[in-house]
Amino acid sequence: MKIDGKAYRSVWRAPESPAVQIVDQTRLPHRFEVLTLTTSAAVAHAIRTMQVRGAPLIGACGAYGLALALGEDPGDAALESAYATLNATRPTAVNLRWGLDRVRAAVRPLAAAERAAAAYRVADTIADEDVAINAAIGRHGLALITAIAGRSPGRTVNVLTHCNAGWLATVDWGTATAPIYMAHDAGIDIHVWVDETRPRNQGAALTAWELGRHGVKHTLVADNAGGHLMQHGLVDLCLVGTDRVTRTGDVCNKIGTYLKALAARDNNVPFYVCLPSPTIDWRVADGLAEIPIEQRSAREVTHISGRTADGEIVEVELPPVGTPARNDAFDVTPARLVTGLVTERGVCPATAAGLAGLFPGEAAGPPA
Amino acid sequence: MKIDGKAYRSVWRAPESPAVQIVDQTRLPHRFEVLTLTTSAAVAHAIRTMQVRGAPLIGACGAYGLALALGEDPGDAALESAYATLNATRPTAVNLRWGLDRVRAAVRPLAAAERAAAAYRVADTIADEDVAINAAIGRHGLALITAIAGRSPGRTVNVLTHCNAGWLATVDWGTATAPIYMAHDAGIDIHVWVDETRPRNQGAALTAWELGRHGVKHTLVADNAGGHLMQHGLVDLCLVGTDRVTRTGDVCNKIGTYLKALAARDNNVPFYVCLPSPTIDWRVADGLAEIPIEQRSAREVTHISGRTADGEIVEVELPPVGTPARNDAFDVTPARLVTGLVTERGVCPATAAGLAGLFPGEAAGPPA
Repeated sequence: MKIDGKAYRSVWRAPESPAVQIVDQTRLPHRFEVLTLTTSAAVAHAIRTMQVRGAPLIGACGAYGLALALGEDPGDAALESAYATLNATRPTAVNLRWGLDRVRAAVRPLAAAERAAAAYRVADTIADEDVAINAAIGRHGLALITAIAGRSPGRTVNVLTHCNAGWLATVDWGTATAPIYMAHDAGIDIHVWVDETRPRNQGAALTAWELGRHGVKHTLVADNAGGHLMQHGLVDLCLVGTDRVTRTGDVCNKIGTYLKALAARDNNVPFYVCLPSPTIDWRVADGLAEIPIEQRSAREVTHISGRTADGEIVEVELPPVGTPARNDAFDVTPARLVTGLVTERGVCPATAAGLAGLFPGEAAGPPA
Repeated sequence: MKIDGKAYRSVWRAPESPAVQIVDQTRLPHRFEVLTLTTSAAVAHAIRTMQVRGAPLIGACGAYGLALALGEDPGDAALESAYATLNATRPTAVNLRWGLDRVRAAVRPLAAAERAAAAYRVADTIADEDVAINAAIGRHGLALITAIAGRSPGRTVNVLTHCNAGWLATVDWGTATAPIYMAHDAGIDIHVWVDETRPRNQGAALTAWELGRHGVKHTLVADNAGGHLMQHGLVDLCLVGTDRVTRTGDVCNKIGTYLKALAARDNNVPFYVCLPSPTIDWRVADGLAEIPIEQRSAREVTHISGRTADGEIVEVELPPVGTPARNDAFDVTPARLVTGLVTERGVCPATAAGLAGLFPGEAAGPPA
């Protein structure tokens, strides 16, 4: 998507290879900075510290990280070591493992000298596919928005989203935002309620930023507000992304998603989850019992960064000194609360049969 | 309750009357400062800017404000003018109007010279009654906690609370916290999940502070986390306060309460609301349709104050400059989601019959 008129992806090969470049998302919305990552260790650091985040994006970045590792040492031991390091950076999203698996499977049969170049090609393909997948998600989601707009001509369509499932969370377009950008570009009067998304404020810092840069109308609200807005008819549709979907349709996403899904159900507001198929974990049936939930630092709850009136970026502490805090990064929304899954192949019910209908090969078992 | 070993209420008559003193809650948790309010205008300012907040406390403060006004001018016109000014400071909690009504009714029949002193006596009575009411709420709520503790001896009882319905929100004890303090003092192993409570962070700033000062175990969590904690069996009981309860049991409370009530219902966690009877609005039957929801400044969502590493209190901006925000201060939890109401007269179902059973006089109509 565009920033000040210039098209960007969230990760791309650096002009001086071997290296990749990313937008440092820990500096947004106050600073726009591009980082050049020249080693797999730098990529692992970027994923771990959330300079890049979002399930699809860390899938692509993981693949590039493995390519950089193979440029350093193409041997089997180094391959396995880099795979393990990168795979351990974040535990919840399944795309990371998927991206690493895909690169590893492609390079294992190759001679050492061919591995790095082949890994880059796979990583490029993953990135390009992600863009195409999100565009397809956008087209399928656009149909949902168009249907709502058609029922009440002349009225704004209000979408609520949580966290950032925007182009910054993918390689381009975003998952939950792809239908929003397409609706906006098609001239539909659309407005987005942006959940702040504590404790890391991805909504306030990233979603508000990218929607604003693209010119999409939006309003920031506290995470507490969504239920109230739905009770008062101010939300037509919820669109969120996800870090992992089980084969039965349970949705793991940023902490707080479950609360919004409950409110949507209580107020008959459609609640759709947008996902590229690499986000589906075909091995897992019970999201609550089986998906590991990342525990992050308590400091993310107790401290917050922002911009002072002087333009300085300052970190401040919110509660009394020494207050204990807990920071579960994700929660699981049971499939029963999800109206539908928007994938690159279309929209399906959040059920095993629904997913198997769109992805019969994957649902049947791992590829040979 | 005690601060560093010294007993405090949240509002009291100043040594040099006519004046009242309060703890400035906008300075907590970083500074503990007592303010002396010498005019009704200063009281109105303190309520409007949330130097004092919490439905029961602003009821008592409103009464003191009217007493100060009558000290300035005991005439009928001045009485009505001060009533109107104080009543307009916050729209949602019903206790404010209740406190003002009580003082006005008491002084109207009196000669001008007697009014101010009589008003102070009524305000003192309201304050003393609030302390007694909250202690009674604490005893009734303690029975709920004791029952949970009795079912699983040796296990910590985990209570989740939202916003601050603590002693800072009342004259003493708190509503939702009174059972917690009494359980703690009785030696029950109790732990409190403290919702941060964006956008004003009353949980992080006030509840964490007062629980910490009293020595009650607690953990701060983002507002997004409660549903996840309940899904994983980490919450035995939700206890919250309220700013207004309808005669049918609908509960208006800090924005986000409704989301937690939905999660409690979905996970079979008991969800109790603690309230003194002046919080009941006997005139209102439909909370969602009839209770006015205060709209506060967008700046409370976009800016936040905290303590830097140097100990300075600094305000920082979170989203991109110019991001629009909306700030509804309260939401309404429908009675169907409330397990029970804990009042000074005992626990009842959140229904018209339940409340009428405990308060037959009030339910029958306004006093003569």
